[in-house]
Amino acid sequence: MGRNSDAIRHVLEVITTRRTIRRFRDDPVSETVVQSLLKAAIHAPNAGNSQPWHFLVVRNPDVRRKLAEAALGQAFLATAPVVIVVCADLGRAMTAYGERGVSLYCLQDTAAATMNMLLAAHALGFGSSWVGAFDERMVSKVLSLPEFRRPVALVAIGKPAEGPGKPERLPIDKVSKVIE
Amino acid sequence: MGRNSDAIRHVLEVITTRRTIRRFRDDPVSETVVQSLLKAAIHAPNAGNSQPWHFLVVRNPDVRRKLAEAALGQAFLATAPVVIVVCADLGRAMTAYGERGVSLYCLQDTAAATMNMLLAAHALGFGSSWVGAFDERMVSKVLSLPEFRRPVALVAIGKPAEGPGKPERLPIDKVSKVIE
Repeated sequence: MGRNSDAIRHVLEVITTRRTIRRFRDDPVSETVVQSLLKAAIHAPNAGNSQPWHFLVVRNPDVRRKLAEAALGQAFLATAPVVIVVCADLGRAMTAYGERGVSLYCLQDTAAATMNMLLAAHALGFGSSWVGAFDERMVSKVLSLPEFRRPVALVAIGKPAEGPGKPERLPIDKVSKVIE
Repeated sequence: MGRNSDAIRHVLEVITTRRTIRRFRDDPVSETVVQSLLKAAIHAPNAGNSQPWHFLVVRNPDVRRKLAEAALGQAFLATAPVVIVVCADLGRAMTAYGERGVSLYCLQDTAAATMNMLLAAHALGFGSSWVGAFDERMVSKVLSLPEFRRPVALVAIGKPAEGPGKPERLPIDKVSKVIE
């Protein structure tokens, strides 16, 4: 409301200049930074404040290598200093909202949390990539996840060692319509 | 990288101070604002740049009333000047990624787009609420959606007429774990 034009510009700029980063420098990602990312994540809106999420912050190089294998060989996952595995908590989702909770809300809620995390990372000068293509059973096994936790995203985080351009988007009027 | 501390603070602040707003003032939401929200939305990361989304910007009061009915009587939807109906494009999702595209990626991609939209709205001084509880068939009928478009969120937008507190979140250490 009383937000000034600098704040508006900064927020819109972070949203539009974020890129998927797959090459990382060796610089460490401090625990303070990780806490900022998780704080951003848990501030995401979610169905009835059910908070159907769990985050595994993977620093261990062996585990990162196994995650990369589970992600169909996306080797860059092993080169990021930190991989945050975003899990949907199917138990909380089912208790709160039944089938729609499990098949829709908890996927949306964890995606919203992930989006917040990527924006916070970019604001803080870190790059990230959101990986969705992986073998869920392999990831669950590597991390010994209980059955009620479904891994839904692997997020690689680190200082960017590349500055890729924006993939071209369809123009807004091709993906929207106004109903007056 | 060279981002200054004001920019960082502004972004983290917008993420953590956003609230779900269900009471709106009558002030209009200009087309310029709507375009800013849609621009933020389409900058969300998405599987392989498939952009499996479509946004219906509903200004028409009759249609908003019918959406409120489809949303199990969440009447505030009819009182927001604009409701943006976020649809997943199942056709694009299926073509690009098959079953996993339809049941996971397009839900995550549209949720990430919605998150960006809510943050842009908050930065611009607008309130929003993300509604997921609705009868999808009723919404599809009201909007004459083709079968390949699945409505996944109704987003009410307007100038806030309330300033609710933050719903309490579980502490970060209850929803995360570090694997060293």
